[in-house]
Amino acid sequence: MANILDFETVALADDKDAIVIIDQTLLPGETKLIELRTAKEIWDAIYLLQVRGAPAIGVTAGFGIYILMKHTKAETFDEFMTEFKEKKDYLDSSRPTAVNLSWALNRMEQLVLKVTDNGRNYNRQELITAMKNESEAIKAEDIEVCRRIGEYGLTLVKEGDGILTHCNAGKLCACKYGTATAPIYLGHEKGYNFRVFCDETRPLLQGARLTAYELHSAGIDTTVICDNMSASVMQKGWVDAVFVGCDRVAANGDVANKIGTSVVATVAARYGVPFYVCAPTSTIDINTLTGADINIEQREPMEVTEMWYEKRMAPEGVKVYNPAFDVTDNSLIAGIVTEYGILRAPYDKAIKELFY
Amino acid sequence: MANILDFETVALADDKDAIVIIDQTLLPGETKLIELRTAKEIWDAIYLLQVRGAPAIGVTAGFGIYILMKHTKAETFDEFMTEFKEKKDYLDSSRPTAVNLSWALNRMEQLVLKVTDNGRNYNRQELITAMKNESEAIKAEDIEVCRRIGEYGLTLVKEGDGILTHCNAGKLCACKYGTATAPIYLGHEKGYNFRVFCDETRPLLQGARLTAYELHSAGIDTTVICDNMSASVMQKGWVDAVFVGCDRVAANGDVANKIGTSVVATVAARYGVPFYVCAPTSTIDINTLTGADINIEQREPMEVTEMWYEKRMAPEGVKVYNPAFDVTDNSLIAGIVTEYGILRAPYDKAIKELFY
Repeated sequence: MANILDFETVALADDKDAIVIIDQTLLPGETKLIELRTAKEIWDAIYLLQVRGAPAIGVTAGFGIYILMKHTKAETFDEFMTEFKEKKDYLDSSRPTAVNLSWALNRMEQLVLKVTDNGRNYNRQELITAMKNESEAIKAEDIEVCRRIGEYGLTLVKEGDGILTHCNAGKLCACKYGTATAPIYLGHEKGYNFRVFCDETRPLLQGARLTAYELHSAGIDTTVICDNMSASVMQKGWVDAVFVGCDRVAANGDVANKIGTSVVATVAARYGVPFYVCAPTSTIDINTLTGADINIEQREPMEVTEMWYEKRMAPEGVKVYNPAFDVTDNSLIAGIVTEYGILRAPYDKAIKELFY
Repeated sequence: MANILDFETVALADDKDAIVIIDQTLLPGETKLIELRTAKEIWDAIYLLQVRGAPAIGVTAGFGIYILMKHTKAETFDEFMTEFKEKKDYLDSSRPTAVNLSWALNRMEQLVLKVTDNGRNYNRQELITAMKNESEAIKAEDIEVCRRIGEYGLTLVKEGDGILTHCNAGKLCACKYGTATAPIYLGHEKGYNFRVFCDETRPLLQGARLTAYELHSAGIDTTVICDNMSASVMQKGWVDAVFVGCDRVAANGDVANKIGTSVVATVAARYGVPFYVCAPTSTIDINTLTGADINIEQREPMEVTEMWYEKRMAPEGVKVYNPAFDVTDNSLIAGIVTEYGILRAPYDKAIKELFY
């Protein structure tokens, strides 16, 4: 049987005219690769979480803007930029919280400006080739960044440790290793025998469907728990560290991540379990001063009341509050693991030093 | 359309040979009354959570031991007690954590000893009649106890408050008013306009399926959230108090309640939201010294990975940890609301005073 780890989370199709992704909404039951060719298909795939996770969204956006511009007929730089910006803004509107989406799109725009010498030197074919290379570089860098996060993260735990993770910050949210799972995969390669607890992560169950799936497929000791069981496993002393990914890190170290992350952080603080955020520097947004400034995506009530279920699981007409993310206060974070090392409090200072 | 509030959670059938319950596993989609006539049917109904909630389990146990003994052929007190104890032990084994189950069965045994003058005066018909009256008294007292808990609880909140509750400690867990919902129902009668947040309460969704259903049916402003969203709503300042029920209170005030309760308590402490436990004194077990001494029921993995879903939501072969309850440390509890008033820390002292 095919192992989920044998498939690429996001890739360019052989003809370079489409993005190929695993449709993550069908996992773990069905492993289906789908091709995204149009702007609408890419937008929908991101919005519907067929591809999700900050790094993977960034890679998808990079590939996306490339394939959408690849066959442009723009004769001038201005025509090119008009078309580019329209497509960029459209893709950027698919999800508001993960900064990697706009980070990757801005990086592609910077490339366009650089290659054309700010428009003074417009060579369409050369520009398209540069965009292809840049989008592939984003993906290659993602793999390397995750590997380095894994190496730094691995210094925070030891053989046999219990590790709790929330949502999916695994291979399926990035291109290899994942972010929060990178220390787990690297440790597993070294025979560390971690015991991993996966919060199922309501409402979309990325922990049960995706993280538990990929870790179990890799032969790692994996236990699924409901989100409300974190205190129980920590009270028993089964958890030595928490690793989570993130969608955006503010300049002061506040972290937006999948809903429930701040609950885990609060519980971890009570039980003295260190809570680590694994964050490629592409998720650090120095233009967002604090967590309070992060736009939190609200999603449809049906995700809570109907999706996945055979029948509706809450009474008709009842209200539902369904934020996709929450903000974890920097005071609850023991360390932010980046590809350049582990940031420690005070985070505003550590982040400033990293960027300047 | 029939309103769920029009049906009794637990009742004796007209012929007094069966218990009639609402099958709560089918809610909110279907309101089906079922009759329990045999020991196996009663045991299954409790184990399968067709009837659940500490007070309702107590009432069911009282009715249960009565209808199971009603047609006894025991000629002597010794024969009667042998049969009684066998049935009592069997019913008592259906769920380990809620103390009301054994509390009600012990109360019925005490009655048997009292009515027969410790066996010296065995009149079968008189004894059966006394058992019927006692089981009905347990139910009547439950209603009165919940009403009084509601009145004390109502002094802790004010008009327009936001109240968060976990699992179902409502009418469906007791006979009227519920425990944690009693202040809400009484306040609603007075026009208090509470805004209530119901944790959906994985894995069995009693919050979404039952609490949200009964409160919404009563016309109360009700919002369902996933268990991992408690920090988000508290961070927004939407929650003024948390009310939860309980399955067992230890002599030091530690509280066993539905899994996730201690997570809510930990989050509430962080956001300065008072966390109240609504506890009939029948749930206080002075023979259990601390929460560490409470036997926590472990349930089947399929409740997490398959139940409710159209298809399996975690990979085959992955481990699942599924405790039905957790223990909330007394230090996180702002007050324990009983039918005799509100207990405050230090709880060991307050509980001792209440009982002696």
